[in-house]
Amino acid sequence: MSGIDRRTLLGAAVSVGASVGFASGVKAQMAPGQTRADVSSFMAEMQSIVGEEWAFWSEQALVPYDKSYIPDPSGLLHPVGAVAPRTVEEVQEIVRAANRHHQPLWPISTGKNMGYGSAVPATPGQVVLDLKRMNRILEVDVDLGTCLIEPGVTYQQLKTYLEDNNIPLWIDVPTVGPIASPVGNTLERGVGYTPYGEHFMFQCGMEVILPDGRLMRTGMGSIEGSTAWQAFKWGYGPYVDGLFTQSNFGVVTKMGLWLMPQPPAYKPFMIRHANMDDVPKIIEAMRPLRVSSLIANCNLMMSASYQLSMFNRRNSVVADGMPLDDESVKRAARANGLGMWNTYFALYGTEEVVAAIEPIVRGALTASGGEVLTEHEMGDNPWFHHHATLMKGGLNLDEIGMVRWRGNGGGLAWFAPVAAAKGAEAERQTRLAREILDKYGFDYTAAYAIGWRDLHHIIALLFDKSDAEEEARADACYREMVTRFGQQGWASYRTGVNTMDLVSQQYGQVNRDFNATIKQALDPNHILAPGKSGIA
Amino acid sequence: MSGIDRRTLLGAAVSVGASVGFASGVKAQMAPGQTRADVSSFMAEMQSIVGEEWAFWSEQALVPYDKSYIPDPSGLLHPVGAVAPRTVEEVQEIVRAANRHHQPLWPISTGKNMGYGSAVPATPGQVVLDLKRMNRILEVDVDLGTCLIEPGVTYQQLKTYLEDNNIPLWIDVPTVGPIASPVGNTLERGVGYTPYGEHFMFQCGMEVILPDGRLMRTGMGSIEGSTAWQAFKWGYGPYVDGLFTQSNFGVVTKMGLWLMPQPPAYKPFMIRHANMDDVPKIIEAMRPLRVSSLIANCNLMMSASYQLSMFNRRNSVVADGMPLDDESVKRAARANGLGMWNTYFALYGTEEVVAAIEPIVRGALTASGGEVLTEHEMGDNPWFHHHATLMKGGLNLDEIGMVRWRGNGGGLAWFAPVAAAKGAEAERQTRLAREILDKYGFDYTAAYAIGWRDLHHIIALLFDKSDAEEEARADACYREMVTRFGQQGWASYRTGVNTMDLVSQQYGQVNRDFNATIKQALDPNHILAPGKSGIA
Repeated sequence: MSGIDRRTLLGAAVSVGASVGFASGVKAQMAPGQTRADVSSFMAEMQSIVGEEWAFWSEQALVPYDKSYIPDPSGLLHPVGAVAPRTVEEVQEIVRAANRHHQPLWPISTGKNMGYGSAVPATPGQVVLDLKRMNRILEVDVDLGTCLIEPGVTYQQLKTYLEDNNIPLWIDVPTVGPIASPVGNTLERGVGYTPYGEHFMFQCGMEVILPDGRLMRTGMGSIEGSTAWQAFKWGYGPYVDGLFTQSNFGVVTKMGLWLMPQPPAYKPFMIRHANMDDVPKIIEAMRPLRVSSLIANCNLMMSASYQLSMFNRRNSVVADGMPLDDESVKRAARANGLGMWNTYFALYGTEEVVAAIEPIVRGALTASGGEVLTEHEMGDNPWFHHHATLMKGGLNLDEIGMVRWRGNGGGLAWFAPVAAAKGAEAERQTRLAREILDKYGFDYTAAYAIGWRDLHHIIALLFDKSDAEEEARADACYREMVTRFGQQGWASYRTGVNTMDLVSQQYGQVNRDFNATIKQALDPNHILAPGKSGIA
Repeated sequence: MSGIDRRTLLGAAVSVGASVGFASGVKAQMAPGQTRADVSSFMAEMQSIVGEEWAFWSEQALVPYDKSYIPDPSGLLHPVGAVAPRTVEEVQEIVRAANRHHQPLWPISTGKNMGYGSAVPATPGQVVLDLKRMNRILEVDVDLGTCLIEPGVTYQQLKTYLEDNNIPLWIDVPTVGPIASPVGNTLERGVGYTPYGEHFMFQCGMEVILPDGRLMRTGMGSIEGSTAWQAFKWGYGPYVDGLFTQSNFGVVTKMGLWLMPQPPAYKPFMIRHANMDDVPKIIEAMRPLRVSSLIANCNLMMSASYQLSMFNRRNSVVADGMPLDDESVKRAARANGLGMWNTYFALYGTEEVVAAIEPIVRGALTASGGEVLTEHEMGDNPWFHHHATLMKGGLNLDEIGMVRWRGNGGGLAWFAPVAAAKGAEAERQTRLAREILDKYGFDYTAAYAIGWRDLHHIIALLFDKSDAEEEARADACYREMVTRFGQQGWASYRTGVNTMDLVSQQYGQVNRDFNATIKQALDPNHILAPGKSGIA
């Protein structure tokens, strides 16, 4: 595959007008102590490992690795090279070479960490270790409902494989599922829409290349002849899989995942609430249903503005330059069959089980003031269809439309603070978020999700990245949200590459020191992803 | 509480005839490089921290810490002291003093790790760090179904607290629940009987004293003002809670747990199969029900001999010295309403949900050749009652009776190899286990459990510990089972303190080195629990 083909592939998801990030004329900074010559020497060695066509360090060849949706007004975040191995042995060789050259590496699976930085490294001077060529589905166990895959496998690829082989197992997809990697998303502790939506919970076993090049298998994976690598999560002794999530302690080259058996019956619901201040009531009604597992999937409460941003331009709702007032949003929402809050969940099981649960759920959510809607009422409404697809492990790219809400610049940064699943928390959070977003002139395009007992507030900070002033404003807005939410006890579960240090500081010095101690022990040359999650 | 009271308390669970372990005349070995004077000096400092009455190092005062059910023919495993702090600050002082004195500490919660070593350290010369006085229930959130507790809290205490306060939340208990610690059991990755039976999965947030005395809170616990410490497991950056399970990297002083909301309906089942070789069929029938979560709790397939050992002496089934033949077992089982395999699970939900699932389950298990039995048929059968109690979070000590199966010596070692939940695995495992047990003259008193996709074979090696020859034979038998099962790819998920190194070797040198690297980084003086899970 030529450089052009690869760029087209990577760029296909969104066609944005302006060039972003790696603007012409910008020279990428080197890592501390490295010169351009050092990088060239390292990259030449990379070519000897992976072949000439899979190691890049010209500005042009790096463009596909350099496009992110998050604000980076400093313009400092650029990779200085990229290398795409095909085998585990090549990964080991690359890691060993990086130690010799003191060249930091930024591993990506498919690099679609959209709204969190995509493929862009957290600090300047890193070489992207692109694992997309390692894309084998190594095993699917139909009876156990498990698979073993490589990092370059996409959700689309896994779904197609299951369908082609008539395997009645579902995948669980995050936003932008088709082009994203199950391994990458799980390592970021991403979430999806089915009862298997807490991806890290349903991960089972890893193969990891340690920073010194050794290969380690976790769980039961190191036992020769074991049938349980994908069946039993914990293994023996300290459970270490968590160490390799949201971190820079190793390169994950294989991962086991649990797949949900396709249930005989599936019924998606949408609950429509009329007013912005209804969300605490929804959460109070929903929590007992989630905690008791009567509703088994992570449920999403989508604000009307978030919903509208998926399929609309902002100026179809209010005129350019005007604030996004609730009345205009309500009008546009109503025209599209939406409420001010739209809550999605589904029931899974046999027909009889679904029928047994439905009245309880209807009762509780009607009492909260919601209209309980199903396919019967919503038909092919695109928002209902979107969620009905995702909640059964289906794929679509609808949400990518959000980045065009305010212009063609493709600006999106997710802010995702965590609280307990209590209505009072949401009331205070929504107020604070709107205050800060208003101050900076951005819209409250947000959702809430109840995982099991946690409440995630998922705020899409949408901006026009082709406008430098707006990009700087978005950056300041995001940082103020992180800081002021943190002061209230609401810290993020995940953040973009340019705010990782800021968020990790909120988790305190002891935790930072602990991570630093582990890092120093495993990676004394700090060659793996320095800056990831605030770990140098 | 005086020393006498404490000993009585610790000894109350089982009254065994012979003194075990710390036999009179045996002198406990010191840790490498330590003298008895060093220990005395350390213990004097302990007294200054916790008060005179809570630091012990006389042989008599240590007896309660020295009683275990596992074989230890070498007689080497004894603590040299014990210290029982009441506060987190005392734990920090103790750990810092241990670093100064190079005195290893063996932390226990309540020390009831029955059949795995109880309170006994894995290597000679350690001082037991007994956390039982730290026994506060710090918080129960009724709406979220969560609690925050200290290590000395017992399952009985937590259950009583919930009942006394009319809180409709269940606990999930392991064997010997009343006297065991939820924190201790979760740290050992123990399992129970309800849908929350995978205890580590339902743990959320820890407070840990690191080996250098620093206090760290995991997950959201380090965020000031967070409401989510017990609500959201992962926090930000590497997820580290797993590091503190089955390990010696820190002393856990607080733990969050999720508690299951009491369901409106609960229906326990027992499936009776007539023949020893039925177990693969049961597993094949059960796996799809478990993988699909139609059956939501960890189900147990109990062999007749395991069942009989709970409430009977061996010589009520066969004469002393005779092998435990299948015909005799079958006869005794039948007389007690039992089959050769007895499979327990329950349905949970509303009446309607239970009614919707029951026919499916009945159909599948009847087709496997089982008789499907409920309270209607089983009434107050003690075995049915035992499991019906446990599967709704109830407490009992019935299983302690097992240690008297072969005599008064109280010998029990659990062997628990892991496989995928497939019938063919069980067929091979049962054959191998019986071959080895027969060779050493022990009985196949065993169960299988399907967690979710994993199959645990739970073999109770029952012996008379008052008979030195039998103890040595049990030790050899256990080691041969570990070794030969390991050669087939079946490694243990947990083991006794005297076989931790043996099991950890099966997980390979890379994994051992990885753990050693973490250990060295966090605990350079190796003062926390050397030998735990094979980590020095």
